[in-house]
Amino acid sequence: MSILVVGSVALDSVETPFGKADDALGGSATFFSASASYFSPINVVGVVGSDFPHNELEFLKTRNVSLDGIKTEEGKTFRWGGKYHVDMNQRDTLFTALNVFEHFKPVIPGQYKNSEYVFLGNIAPTLQLDVLAQIDNPKLVALDTMNFWISGMKESLVEVIKKVDIILINDQEAKELTDKTNLVQAANAIFELGPQVVVIKKGEHGALLFTKQGIFSAPALPMETVCDPTGAGDSFAGGFIGYLAHNDVLKNGVLDESVLRKAMIYGSVMASFSIEDFSLEKLKDLSSEEISNRYIQFVELASF
Amino acid sequence: MSILVVGSVALDSVETPFGKADDALGGSATFFSASASYFSPINVVGVVGSDFPHNELEFLKTRNVSLDGIKTEEGKTFRWGGKYHVDMNQRDTLFTALNVFEHFKPVIPGQYKNSEYVFLGNIAPTLQLDVLAQIDNPKLVALDTMNFWISGMKESLVEVIKKVDIILINDQEAKELTDKTNLVQAANAIFELGPQVVVIKKGEHGALLFTKQGIFSAPALPMETVCDPTGAGDSFAGGFIGYLAHNDVLKNGVLDESVLRKAMIYGSVMASFSIEDFSLEKLKDLSSEEISNRYIQFVELASF
Repeated sequence: MSILVVGSVALDSVETPFGKADDALGGSATFFSASASYFSPINVVGVVGSDFPHNELEFLKTRNVSLDGIKTEEGKTFRWGGKYHVDMNQRDTLFTALNVFEHFKPVIPGQYKNSEYVFLGNIAPTLQLDVLAQIDNPKLVALDTMNFWISGMKESLVEVIKKVDIILINDQEAKELTDKTNLVQAANAIFELGPQVVVIKKGEHGALLFTKQGIFSAPALPMETVCDPTGAGDSFAGGFIGYLAHNDVLKNGVLDESVLRKAMIYGSVMASFSIEDFSLEKLKDLSSEEISNRYIQFVELASF
Repeated sequence: MSILVVGSVALDSVETPFGKADDALGGSATFFSASASYFSPINVVGVVGSDFPHNELEFLKTRNVSLDGIKTEEGKTFRWGGKYHVDMNQRDTLFTALNVFEHFKPVIPGQYKNSEYVFLGNIAPTLQLDVLAQIDNPKLVALDTMNFWISGMKESLVEVIKKVDIILINDQEAKELTDKTNLVQAANAIFELGPQVVVIKKGEHGALLFTKQGIFSAPALPMETVCDPTGAGDSFAGGFIGYLAHNDVLKNGVLDESVLRKAMIYGSVMASFSIEDFSLEKLKDLSSEEISNRYIQFVELASF
């Protein structure tokens, strides 16, 4: 099943205790696509500026990612700069320059409109609503968001959450969105809005899957060196939604719990690769053997 | 196999968003014993003041816990007061009154000296060393500690760590002890001191087991209401060491990895009960069915 993803395509400048990357490929749609492409065909919608080095996306084309929906606008590409501390769980945003992204109006190309799976990356909820209005009867819609939209555009965000099947959100954001201090209560409050599946990402502590059937706790792989955590959440989403689409999780209108759980692990697998190097470096050329070996590491990590 | 535990027996005054408890039964040895007694016979060594309500420990006697090693000294019992915030992961210590605990010199009764398993609860490392000097050739020794001893008595703490098989420590303390910011590096640094097993407790994020064979990630049960987290770490230790002793994890000089992993889950099971009520209330009278049903909940939580 093909996946339509709408999100940012950016140039990131990142400093970590392990080094620096300037104007390196980044953005939610980019990390998501690179990660999800190991599982399913991807159609990307986004915008870049006239300064964008299109050759850097070439590797995606070789992996069944259609870039026809990426529009080039006069001006500069969206840029983000951040610095991670020695404790990699903490980072400072040094700058956010929306540039061409500021007036981005996603237009879904005709050939993308029958995408069965849709991933609404972390962009303004009003744009996420725009995208949904352009899609013909998608089979499954998932959404990611961030604190910026929770505090600034909560009403639109709640409106779009009501229309999606799956929400991916981190622990702090889930609490903020629902005014709860407890994750089980937060997940239940989100269920009341409409989604059938709530995925709460906890960074180095793994991720929780909440469905009507129960809770699944996916561990994160403890790693000795984390080079750059940027994009880990979108890489997780890519592995997760990619696996759901590949296995068509929705059978006869029912979400397959076992596929959802395995998808959580594939999400964690892809996130664990993503943070091993700067930018998308590690996601460019993984073998299926590397992915399945990493999956086995997760099986060993969680078995008792 | 019987377990010798040395630690504090205290009266805690705790305030949480769910209520208050004044001078309620607490202390590392108490929580540990109540929890471990569901798995193995326990011998407790500790000290209380002349004001201690001994009848409150009576329930332990019915469960194969020997209290002969608890000495009553003239003076007041050790008291601790704390207040938990709406976010239960944060607490303020309101007061710590060591009282009779200040001059505690643990004396191991003769009939305890051949205990096969030893748990050195969170007390001064100098006292932990004293205890070890009094034991005849124990089969397995485990130790818990806290930031107070890491910053104040690091040299003695390292000395006792060198003599134990298993260390239980929380994530922040593991980083502090080893001057690492990464848990894998911290565990490896602790291995270099001597222990064969490092358990890193992460509160609501579960716990990690590090052995020479690999890493196991034990999830925590996401709970909708947490009444009082006090004693969760010691209840975890009780379930963990209790299960190890019950199954005699050390066979022909080799630690059984499968027993260690299941013990991590029993530790998590007992911690999950402990936090459901104030003080030791929930640990007083669990049925074996409640414990095995909770274990099954963990199996469902972690399966994929």
